[in-house]
Amino acid sequence: MLTVGIVGASGYTGGEALRILLRHPGVEVVQATSESNAGHFVHTIHPNFRKQSQLKFTSINELKPCEVLFLCLPHGSAMRLIGQLEGLAERIVDLSADFRLRNPADYPAWYGHPHEAPEYLERFVYGIPELHRKAISQARLITGAGCLATASILGLMPLFKHDIVARREIFIEAKVGSSAAGDTPHLSTHHPERSGSVRSFQPTGHRHTAEVVQELSIGQPPTVHFSATAIEAVRGVLATCQVFVKEGVEEKDLWKVYRSEYGDEPFVRIVKERQGIYRYPEPKILAGTNFCDIGFERDARGARLVVMAALDNLVKGAAGNGVQAMNLACGLPETAGLEFPGLHPI
Amino acid sequence: MLTVGIVGASGYTGGEALRILLRHPGVEVVQATSESNAGHFVHTIHPNFRKQSQLKFTSINELKPCEVLFLCLPHGSAMRLIGQLEGLAERIVDLSADFRLRNPADYPAWYGHPHEAPEYLERFVYGIPELHRKAISQARLITGAGCLATASILGLMPLFKHDIVARREIFIEAKVGSSAAGDTPHLSTHHPERSGSVRSFQPTGHRHTAEVVQELSIGQPPTVHFSATAIEAVRGVLATCQVFVKEGVEEKDLWKVYRSEYGDEPFVRIVKERQGIYRYPEPKILAGTNFCDIGFERDARGARLVVMAALDNLVKGAAGNGVQAMNLACGLPETAGLEFPGLHPI
Amino acid sequence: MLTVGIVGASGYTGGEALRILLRHPGVEVVQATSESNAGHFVHTIHPNFRKQSQLKFTSINELKPCEVLFLCLPHGSAMRLIGQLEGLAERIVDLSADFRLRNPADYPAWYGHPHEAPEYLERFVYGIPELHRKAISQARLITGAGCLATASILGLMPLFKHDIVARREIFIEAKVGSSAAGDTPHLSTHHPERSGSVRSFQPTGHRHTAEVVQELSIGQPPTVHFSATAIEAVRGVLATCQVFVKEGVEEKDLWKVYRSEYGDEPFVRIVKERQGIYRYPEPKILAGTNFCDIGFERDARGARLVVMAALDNLVKGAAGNGVQAMNLACGLPETAGLEFPGLHPI
Amino acid sequence: MLTVGIVGASGYTGGEALRILLRHPGVEVVQATSESNAGHFVHTIHPNFRKQSQLKFTSINELKPCEVLFLCLPHGSAMRLIGQLEGLAERIVDLSADFRLRNPADYPAWYGHPHEAPEYLERFVYGIPELHRKAISQARLITGAGCLATASILGLMPLFKHDIVARREIFIEAKVGSSAAGDTPHLSTHHPERSGSVRSFQPTGHRHTAEVVQELSIGQPPTVHFSATAIEAVRGVLATCQVFVKEGVEEKDLWKVYRSEYGDEPFVRIVKERQGIYRYPEPKILAGTNFCDIGFERDARGARLVVMAALDNLVKGAAGNGVQAMNLACGLPETAGLEFPGLHPI
Repeated sequence: MLTVGIVGASGYTGGEALRILLRHPGVEVVQATSESNAGHFVHTIHPNFRKQSQLKFTSINELKPCEVLFLCLPHGSAMRLIGQLEGLAERIVDLSADFRLRNPADYPAWYGHPHEAPEYLERFVYGIPELHRKAISQARLITGAGCLATASILGLMPLFKHDIVARREIFIEAKVGSSAAGDTPHLSTHHPERSGSVRSFQPTGHRHTAEVVQELSIGQPPTVHFSATAIEAVRGVLATCQVFVKEGVEEKDLWKVYRSEYGDEPFVRIVKERQGIYRYPEPKILAGTNFCDIGFERDARGARLVVMAALDNLVKGAAGNGVQAMNLACGLPETAGLEFPGLHPI
Repeated sequence: MLTVGIVGASGYTGGEALRILLRHPGVEVVQATSESNAGHFVHTIHPNFRKQSQLKFTSINELKPCEVLFLCLPHGSAMRLIGQLEGLAERIVDLSADFRLRNPADYPAWYGHPHEAPEYLERFVYGIPELHRKAISQARLITGAGCLATASILGLMPLFKHDIVARREIFIEAKVGSSAAGDTPHLSTHHPERSGSVRSFQPTGHRHTAEVVQELSIGQPPTVHFSATAIEAVRGVLATCQVFVKEGVEEKDLWKVYRSEYGDEPFVRIVKERQGIYRYPEPKILAGTNFCDIGFERDARGARLVVMAALDNLVKGAAGNGVQAMNLACGLPETAGLEFPGLHPI
Repeated sequence: MLTVGIVGASGYTGGEALRILLRHPGVEVVQATSESNAGHFVHTIHPNFRKQSQLKFTSINELKPCEVLFLCLPHGSAMRLIGQLEGLAERIVDLSADFRLRNPADYPAWYGHPHEAPEYLERFVYGIPELHRKAISQARLITGAGCLATASILGLMPLFKHDIVARREIFIEAKVGSSAAGDTPHLSTHHPERSGSVRSFQPTGHRHTAEVVQELSIGQPPTVHFSATAIEAVRGVLATCQVFVKEGVEEKDLWKVYRSEYGDEPFVRIVKERQGIYRYPEPKILAGTNFCDIGFERDARGARLVVMAALDNLVKGAAGNGVQAMNLACGLPETAGLEFPGLHPI
Repeated sequence: MLTVGIVGASGYTGGEALRILLRHPGVEVVQATSESNAGHFVHTIHPNFRKQSQLKFTSINELKPCEVLFLCLPHGSAMRLIGQLEGLAERIVDLSADFRLRNPADYPAWYGHPHEAPEYLERFVYGIPELHRKAISQARLITGAGCLATASILGLMPLFKHDIVARREIFIEAKVGSSAAGDTPHLSTHHPERSGSVRSFQPTGHRHTAEVVQELSIGQPPTVHFSATAIEAVRGVLATCQVFVKEGVEEKDLWKVYRSEYGDEPFVRIVKERQGIYRYPEPKILAGTNFCDIGFERDARGARLVVMAALDNLVKGAAGNGVQAMNLACGLPETAGLEFPGLHPI
């Protein structure tokens, strides 16, 4: 059994890592830290663990060596602690944004401050298995990816990898639920204000843009026009992406490209039906699952292609993807612990 | 034009008073106080007033005399300020709980502290017009009623007044939306936690119980078994009440009793249909309206009568009811400013 | 008092027309038709009219002459009936799609069938007052506009009219609530399936595209890339639009352009705040109102401009806009009957 | 591997049985019937099975013998088919209401028609394991229980079994989500009408009452006052029950009674916290799980006890409970296939 610790386990990402890892057949969760809840049962914060786990939160100061450490801290913390934490575990999976970007200059540009441990940036592997499976399987340091970035990148990668886009210009409108904003109450997340809202919280300047550019720079970097909207949902992301394909690219070519990339992927499904009410990716049925569902539709009136990608921001967009990467890095079956198929109806 | 001021206008009740009074044909809103927002336009907090009003919040310290003052302060504040505020206006409508109970001993019993201005309790009129129209029309000091209490009292009053209950025992399960908890963010109202919840926030001991007992003590006081549940909604109350009627009371008697009390009431509607999907009171279609919709169903298997009463907690359960009372007290048409019929669908 | 009739009053658009017109100070609603509900009170279908109106539905065969007829029929019906109905009223406001497009060839192209009364197309005025106020004020035949089209057109018109776009290419991702799909139950609108969904119901080929192209063809026609997504809401539209502005266009120029077009408009508000939680247009606070709120944000990393436009699909996106047009055409105050400011919180 | 078939697998209960059984370690699902979808992959109706199962629906006419048959048919069907189906499987688990009541006379009384196969009623075991574990483990014919009945019965059973109620009179107000109404679209479940509703769909006369009376008739039958309200949710039940306990019954006695019944139960949790926001049972965190969470609060002002019981109507209220019973009857570990702990946040 792999011994695993979770640093920052009282937040939503940490709680989700805990949910998956507590039932993972190859893993024993040996510690889960939370400064403000140290000494309390994990179910006092995450009520789904009641009668399921006797684990208690501990302080980060009590961390003991283990085989894998998941870091689920607020952005900016992991880069300060990495030097210290690195010695405690054979492998580290960081789910914050602190090590996602390869170029140190991107941090001041997108996050507004210089990176505090830039020497680590080239050592971390960007942990989306569908893109970097081999590197992840050999990695000691793995970074998760942004939830909106993951959907966008997985949705568009095949087009760029197979070089069938006519312009290196991407338009993304990403919709996301309230859990992506974390577990700290604000007026903006106060139920009477947030309920039913359709809030353009980041029409421009969203930080995940940098990840999309980085990962889709196959050949040259694309221009990414990214807008993000918070909608009524707790979990869930739908990225609606628009690109233009080269002349002569037909629907069957698109199927071929997507199938060649994702036909064997356990967690990517191509969703494009002629009938029924779930014809395209729908995030709600992905709640709790590690799937990224991807669909596309060619505009009959031109070269436009609309690509839709859906996922659960806390699973494939965070903790689940991290576990998938851990499985790869530790030689476990890639899908271990991630078998939940999702609910219908929901 | 009646000059009106609103003290505590940045909260949800104060905002709703503002919405109604700003369009009230017989009223001019001359001041709206908020300590933390003084100097800012009211639309910075209540975005529905954008381009609708140039009013700015002022401090309570700048209050000037006017004809009617609405007090929309947190519970406990009005009893401390009433001595001071009384001199500023001819009439005061207090929407907090501070003057709802006639018996000073009820405050320590239900609110956990002695009343700080008990001498005012007998001077305030309990402001539900359907019960105390005459007293309100002559009142200088009017108190609003609790939202859950208003629904329960209006739903049950005809049965007690006409003395057709077999037992003086009432079972109430009241469901309510998130706006009733006010505008201060907590973890309990954080959207990912509050969304979709069915939370038994007060299975026993709810303070509105005292108002129900007080107002239904027609003859002897009833025993009121009251439970309150927060459900997924921003606005809205549905009180599901169970009582037992005397032998021989038939459906036509119930219609007679309800019609005699509410047939001429502008804001109470008896909702009891054999067909359609809105056969009983439904709070969602009351959003923004001053209606209390009341329905009932006789259990074919005994003497049980289920009474359902729905309203918008911020309107008939707070500000709208207060304006209705003000209209009465000031000789204005009772329905002035309260004509909004509600939306369908919603 | 203007005598008004509503044809097709049991649907959501017809119900909303009824709601507005029943309280319109210059109007008397003399008839409201519904074939399947003829003889029943309007409140049997629209429960918000209970105790508010004694009007009953009648059959279209019983229609009598009146001054204004609102047609709220399913798409395809008005073009078949217009010859007959024209003689019954001095003015007709059609809220279906049947007369929105000026070019008869657009009907087979976008609606899949030839127009059955093409001779009427040039006689109808496209009824968005902010674009065609003068023509509307002289019109006998007025057509409403599509809800997603109205938001998109109002959001983008100032940029095209003032010729500050760098490319004639528009990217629109429009989000919409369930009421836009009408009142007929399907599996796709069955609550367990529709609740919480983020459904790409029309990633390409949405019919409102044709209206956007038509109305923004100031100079040359733009290319409009339009995708539509159904989200969790009953009412509400948010169109997130991306365009590119000419070099040198600064934020102050954008303010100038928008203010010059909309500064005096009663129902368009520019929403762009540095603080608060309603910094951009938010459809939820527009429920029941005739506002179209418009905001914009310039991307600091290029020429991209994101324009956001929100409205209530049943009001400014349908019945409210139609009443505004009727007011203009009949010499009534433009805002009559449309004063509801919306609710907060909601 | 146990071979299992599901009859009526396209509905919500059947789909949930399928979800659980497809991942059950001791089971092979060999057939899933649906007349209207025969020949199609199960994921065409239940999108969560995409890439998870290659199973196709078949007709009930093609049913082959297997070890366990789950019947997930509309009420009234199983009683007509049982004679035929009995021969096909060693064990039958019926999730409809057809065999829940022991007394044939209860069917005309509560369901409005005589039972068509009354000879089977005494052969079926009422399948709530917490009440009838021994009988279930020896049963060939097992009936599921109503979702609202299951919550109510599990919530109240300890009080009646330990004889600590002062009156044999129970007041239940049960709240339930939209999936309980099944998968057939009606106007009442049309999203614009059903969304956000708080609908008293059965204030009296709910059929589950009969099950509560039957199962709580420990000694004498209780009088059950039952009201049911549909609220905004897809899945989830909260039964708020009020009873009166004998004089001298203190909180510690209640803990003792509940712990003695449920301390060792894998799927019942006593939820009663002094702190936190999940102090009582909350159905939303139970979505997809087989838990019934039970809490209670003693009214400080009398003998009233409020008992709250929550579950997922499709799992512990239907398919999950059925699988738990099957596990018992077939000698499998009772929790097999039912390990999903639920999501937080959700």
